[in-house]
Amino acid sequence: MKSIVTNQYSIHFNSACYDELNTYLQHSYFSKIFVLVDNNTHEFCYPHFIAKIETNLVIEIIEIETGEIHKTIETCVGVWSALSELNADRKSLIINLGGGVVTDLGGFVASTYKRGIKYINVPTSLLAMVDASVGGKTGVDLDTLKNQVGVINTAQMILVDTHFLKTLPQNELQSGFAEMLKHGLIHSETYWDTLKGYVLQSSLKYLDILIYESIIIKQNIVDLDPLEDNLRKTLNFGHTLGHAIESYYLSNVDKPSLLHGEAIAVGMVLAAYISKELLHFPNEKCLEIKTILAKTFDKVEIVDDDYKPIIELLKHDKKNEHGNINFVLLNAIGEPKINCLVDNDTIIKSLRYYSN
Amino acid sequence: MKSIVTNQYSIHFNSACYDELNTYLQHSYFSKIFVLVDNNTHEFCYPHFIAKIETNLVIEIIEIETGEIHKTIETCVGVWSALSELNADRKSLIINLGGGVVTDLGGFVASTYKRGIKYINVPTSLLAMVDASVGGKTGVDLDTLKNQVGVINTAQMILVDTHFLKTLPQNELQSGFAEMLKHGLIHSETYWDTLKGYVLQSSLKYLDILIYESIIIKQNIVDLDPLEDNLRKTLNFGHTLGHAIESYYLSNVDKPSLLHGEAIAVGMVLAAYISKELLHFPNEKCLEIKTILAKTFDKVEIVDDDYKPIIELLKHDKKNEHGNINFVLLNAIGEPKINCLVDNDTIIKSLRYYSN
Repeated sequence: MKSIVTNQYSIHFNSACYDELNTYLQHSYFSKIFVLVDNNTHEFCYPHFIAKIETNLVIEIIEIETGEIHKTIETCVGVWSALSELNADRKSLIINLGGGVVTDLGGFVASTYKRGIKYINVPTSLLAMVDASVGGKTGVDLDTLKNQVGVINTAQMILVDTHFLKTLPQNELQSGFAEMLKHGLIHSETYWDTLKGYVLQSSLKYLDILIYESIIIKQNIVDLDPLEDNLRKTLNFGHTLGHAIESYYLSNVDKPSLLHGEAIAVGMVLAAYISKELLHFPNEKCLEIKTILAKTFDKVEIVDDDYKPIIELLKHDKKNEHGNINFVLLNAIGEPKINCLVDNDTIIKSLRYYSN
Repeated sequence: MKSIVTNQYSIHFNSACYDELNTYLQHSYFSKIFVLVDNNTHEFCYPHFIAKIETNLVIEIIEIETGEIHKTIETCVGVWSALSELNADRKSLIINLGGGVVTDLGGFVASTYKRGIKYINVPTSLLAMVDASVGGKTGVDLDTLKNQVGVINTAQMILVDTHFLKTLPQNELQSGFAEMLKHGLIHSETYWDTLKGYVLQSSLKYLDILIYESIIIKQNIVDLDPLEDNLRKTLNFGHTLGHAIESYYLSNVDKPSLLHGEAIAVGMVLAAYISKELLHFPNEKCLEIKTILAKTFDKVEIVDDDYKPIIELLKHDKKNEHGNINFVLLNAIGEPKINCLVDNDTIIKSLRYYSN
C-alpha cells in the first residue's frame, strides 16, 4: 500500500512504517524520543515497535492508564510533568503508541508542551488507524463532555502497522469498524456495499486494503477542510447522538460503558432514521443500515427515562452554533447534508425506532 | 496613535479601541460574548469597559482569582467548565480583560475550548500592554515552571486603553516598565536612552507614546518570527535567569513573591554582566544597566544558598535544546545574540555582581 505524503504529514503502512521512521529520525535533529503508551500497548505493542527502531537517540517511555475514563486533563498533567522531569525540550519528539485515547491525548500534550513539540502517531487499534490518528484532532474529555478541550494540530507522521490488530479484542475491532462503515455512508456507496458484504459473510478478509481505503476517504476530507468549516463536519455523521449516548453511559453507574464505535453505531441508526423522516432518505436504506449495524454490534438498551438526559447532553455538541444543534444527515448513501436542525420529537422517535 | 493592522490581527489604541470593537462585533457572527476577568479587573476595569460596548449579543462574565499563583491548569478547568455550563459554542467570543495572567490563561482557554474559539485581548496592566497580550503566546504554569503548557495562537484584536493604567499600583507599573526597558536593550539604543531619561527624571510623562513604541518593537519581532525559531528568542533577554528566579521565589515560602518584571529586571542585570564577561559588551554599559534598573526596582535579596536551586531550574527553560541552556546576550545595546552557552561559574559570578 502506497504511502500518502502531503506537505504537512505522511502516512505509511506496514513494512514501510519502520523504514520511513528510521530514516526520519536519522535526518531530523531531535534531542530525545518519548514514547507514550498505556498499560496495554506497553505490554502488547511496545516490544514489537521498539524492535524495529534504529536510532542512537535516548528513548523514554511514559505510561498512562488504559481507557476513555483516563482521557482527562489530570492525565495530561501527569504526562506534562513526566516530560518536564525527564527534561524534554522543544526539540523532543513524542511518539503516541496506542489507540484513540493515547493518540488524542498524546497529540494534545505534544501540541501544548512548551507551546508545542512534534509528534508521531502509531495507532494500534482499528479505530485509531481509520479515524483518530488522522486529521490532527487532538484533545481530552472534560467531565463527561467528549473532546471538549483540544487543538487541531497534525502529527508529522502516521504509521499504520496492521500487525497490532492481532492483539486487539473483538469488540475493539468492531468499534473501529463502525467508523469505517461511517466512511462508506457519508462518502461512497461502493465502499459501504463492500463493507456490507464482509459483514454479511462475517469475514474481515482483506482488512488491510479496507483500512487503506478508509484512511484515504478520511484524509481527502480533512485535507479539503482541516478546520471543519463545512465538509469535515460530515465525519460527524452518527456522532451527535452517538457522543451524547457515549457521554451519558460513561457518567451513569447503572449503565455499561460503551466503546466509541458502539455508541456511534447507535448514533448512525438514529441519524439514518432522522434522515428518512426529515429528508428523502429511502426507507429501505434506513432498514439496511439498521440491519447491518445490528449484525455487527450488540443492542444497547436505551429506555424511556434515558431520552431526556441524552437530549440534554446534545446542547454541548461541538457542532452547535447559536444555540442550534446541528445534525449531519443523509440525502442518500454517500450524500451527506450538514447543519440540519432536528426537533426533539423526531429524536425521541428515532430512539424508539432503534429500540424496537 | 495609529492602529496596527496585519492579516491576522489588529491592535488599536485608546479611543479607537471601542469604535473598532463595536464595529467588529456588529459585522461578525458571534453567538455570545464571554468576558474573562479577575477579581481586580472585574471591580476596577469592567465597568469602564462595558460602558463603551454597544452590542445586542449576550455578555457573560467569568471571573478567576487574581495572581500568578492562579495561572494554572486547575483555573483553566474552572473556565472551560464555566464555558460549557454557559453553553459557549464554537461561534462564541472570549474577551480577556486583565493583566498578563488573564490574557495568557484566557488565550490558552480560548485556543483549546472545543479545539479553539476566537478571542480578543484587552490588557489592563502595563506588562500585558507592552508584552503579554501581543504575539500569540498563551499558556499557564505547571507547578513552578512558567508557561510550561500553552500554544501560540494570536488574538483577533488587541485593545490598548491606557485609561486602565490609572487603577494600577506603582509596583505593577514598574513590572511592565521592565519589559519596555528590555525592548530598548535588545532592539534600539535610542529607545533605551529615551526610557533612561524618564527613569532619571522619575517621570512617566508621555507614557502613551512610549507604550506605542514598545508595542511596535515587539510586534515587528513576532511578525518576522512568530514561532520563535530565531529573532523572537531575543525577547527572552533577561528571562532565562529571570524566569528561574521568579519560579524559585514563587515556590519558596521564605521568599517574597516577585512580580514578573521585578524578576526580569534582575535577569537583565545578570545577562548584561554575562554579556560583558563572555562577549565584548562594554563595562560602562553594563554598569549603566545595573544603575538604571536599581533606580527603578527594589533590590531582590539573593543569598549564596539560592544559587544552586536557581541554576537547577534553568534546565527547564523553554529555549533549551539538546540539554544546552541557551542564553540571549548582548554584543551591544540593540544588538542581541541568541543561543549563547554560559557556564555555571559565570552565572554564579553574575549573581554575586547583582548582589554587590
